[in-house]
Amino acid sequence: MDVYLDNAATTPAVPEVAAAVSDALLRRFGNPSSPHRWGIEASRVAGAARDVLAGLLGVAGEEVLFTSGGTESNNLAIGGLAAARRRAGRRIVTTAIEHSSVLAAVDACADEVVRLPVDAAGRVAPEAVAEAAAVPGTVVVAIGHVNNEVGTVQPVAEIGAALARLPQRPAFHVDGVQALGKVPLRPGEWGVDTCALSAHKIHGPKGVGALWVRRGMRMLPLMHGGDQQGGLRPGTENVPGIAGFGAAARLCAAAPDAAAGMATLREKLWEAISMIATRNGPGPETAAPHILNVCVPGLPAEVLLHALEERGVACSAGSACHSRRPEPSHVLLALGLPEAAVRSSIRLSLSRLTTEAEIDAAAEAFRDAVAALRRLVHR
Amino acid sequence: MDVYLDNAATTPAVPEVAAAVSDALLRRFGNPSSPHRWGIEASRVAGAARDVLAGLLGVAGEEVLFTSGGTESNNLAIGGLAAARRRAGRRIVTTAIEHSSVLAAVDACADEVVRLPVDAAGRVAPEAVAEAAAVPGTVVVAIGHVNNEVGTVQPVAEIGAALARLPQRPAFHVDGVQALGKVPLRPGEWGVDTCALSAHKIHGPKGVGALWVRRGMRMLPLMHGGDQQGGLRPGTENVPGIAGFGAAARLCAAAPDAAAGMATLREKLWEAISMIATRNGPGPETAAPHILNVCVPGLPAEVLLHALEERGVACSAGSACHSRRPEPSHVLLALGLPEAAVRSSIRLSLSRLTTEAEIDAAAEAFRDAVAALRRLVHR
Repeated sequence: MDVYLDNAATTPAVPEVAAAVSDALLRRFGNPSSPHRWGIEASRVAGAARDVLAGLLGVAGEEVLFTSGGTESNNLAIGGLAAARRRAGRRIVTTAIEHSSVLAAVDACADEVVRLPVDAAGRVAPEAVAEAAAVPGTVVVAIGHVNNEVGTVQPVAEIGAALARLPQRPAFHVDGVQALGKVPLRPGEWGVDTCALSAHKIHGPKGVGALWVRRGMRMLPLMHGGDQQGGLRPGTENVPGIAGFGAAARLCAAAPDAAAGMATLREKLWEAISMIATRNGPGPETAAPHILNVCVPGLPAEVLLHALEERGVACSAGSACHSRRPEPSHVLLALGLPEAAVRSSIRLSLSRLTTEAEIDAAAEAFRDAVAALRRLVHR
Repeated sequence: MDVYLDNAATTPAVPEVAAAVSDALLRRFGNPSSPHRWGIEASRVAGAARDVLAGLLGVAGEEVLFTSGGTESNNLAIGGLAAARRRAGRRIVTTAIEHSSVLAAVDACADEVVRLPVDAAGRVAPEAVAEAAAVPGTVVVAIGHVNNEVGTVQPVAEIGAALARLPQRPAFHVDGVQALGKVPLRPGEWGVDTCALSAHKIHGPKGVGALWVRRGMRMLPLMHGGDQQGGLRPGTENVPGIAGFGAAARLCAAAPDAAAGMATLREKLWEAISMIATRNGPGPETAAPHILNVCVPGLPAEVLLHALEERGVACSAGSACHSRRPEPSHVLLALGLPEAAVRSSIRLSLSRLTTEAEIDAAAEAFRDAVAALRRLVHR
């Protein structure tokens, strides 16, 4: 049985998503900016998807911009917020365990970057964020709500509240890419200003993301061109992708208890391998439901991944964005793991489609792979 | 009969494109950066599409980057080339009739912008480009190969040759969005350095474009993040969109004579309405095959567009990106048309799917609409 447990990297689209994309491609194909019937129909498709997504977050539809994905959303928010505040300073506060698109976007537009440390569970302290953000010249705070490698859920609401108490509050961007559909995400109520989302992590299409921007936020665009999306994100809207994102968001809205199901299966998997592995990052009570990061001491991650793939199980050594780099994960190092442990750690990530039979098969494959590799090592 | 003649704004996807997108969504869904089988399959899908597109342009596959569309490609090229040459200067040469994503990207990154005038056919003189580009501090020349409103084909090869004779040659970016599949496009042989493309103008999906970048060009990225596409365009590749782009490019490659068919139908349409309209821009011998821009003196464009839509024909007053702005087209004004004529001009644009029956129906609707509006005006 083939088991795909790399859902934090990307998820398969569901048939409803493919149908929505196809319909937009073949039938509602107008340019949403065109004032004729074809354009209006396409614009309605995008508007309906925008409303579903806004409903999931509890925000207003007109506050949602569509982008090409999480990387663009993080770059647009961080770069755009910083550019609009350039006169106030060029200092940005983030954490040591952010996704590369957050860290790199921060590095690209800040003169001074504060990468706050995290505890062994990956958690950053709200007071530490507020303290760092209180330094004059701090214009943006950028934090991922759910870490993509270990599943840490940051205390975003508490951070938002701590920032609100500052005399000079910087803009607060949250990378919500791994949070959407997995944990509650209420940026509008949490003192957040912008929140990045991606469709392909929730069974939607690749190539489409969104950025929630609180009404009235000062922000500059990343690209320049037509009047689309208030000029903040020009370019013909990706209507098929947006339609697919809407269909995927509808699935999330229809099954809010899917997260509990993922967490149950994730713990079943953990229990089945806990005799031969150690667990990295947060415990089951605080972690996002879909990510399990484990270390099998003494086995190099790539060897274990290969043995798992031979047994039909796909997972990863961390972020796919850096899968071709030999460096050990900056996330696991920041959690305080020794480099040897980092090099023996892999991420198994579930989706709402993951079944119990798949988890059983994966657990079996995992135990078999580790046993076989141990025999090899000890021979 | 409904007739869609707004193909310069966007085109319907063809079934082959929808099938390729669907297949990538549902079956080849891996993250192309993942080293496991799912990732490798997705990476192959993207690679195959890249090769088809490269073949159409006569360039190497590894010189093609995928983006979210023409606007991003123009922004990445113009901004990225200018940023890498900041020390040499911040002067950019373009023309007065570029697409908004070129003009706005140029304005955003240049200290001095030269918008060269064009003749009544929309053509810029290669010598004028070279003369303007010879001024010290000029770092980028950005020109659209085919104008999106009137179909002017610029002498890109001659411009490339003229630039090559300069002692300090600036980088040469070409917006090829309206050229792909319509006129020969050989940026690699023409002294061009970067060339922007878009899928949804050739029956591919919205939300995906490409940028050809000549091997070795110095250029900075627009976004920052993972290692995808050499770091020049980070973010998980839009594999379904790329697969659809590849399928659309395959159609172009398989039917190279489609352009002649479009030109024939366009002239048929023109002949049928030439008694009641005047033609803007280039004549049939030099124009790209898919665009017809006409003026019906005395009738406001929006009134004529409305009357045409009532008769089932969709076309536009110019670029869809600015359809909500009341300003008259900067392109038609630059061609030397009086403002009254500009305000009475509309664009009819064909695709390779446009049929003779549709053209006959559109011509009939056009004559009927004009006659009805004239009766109304003269009553």
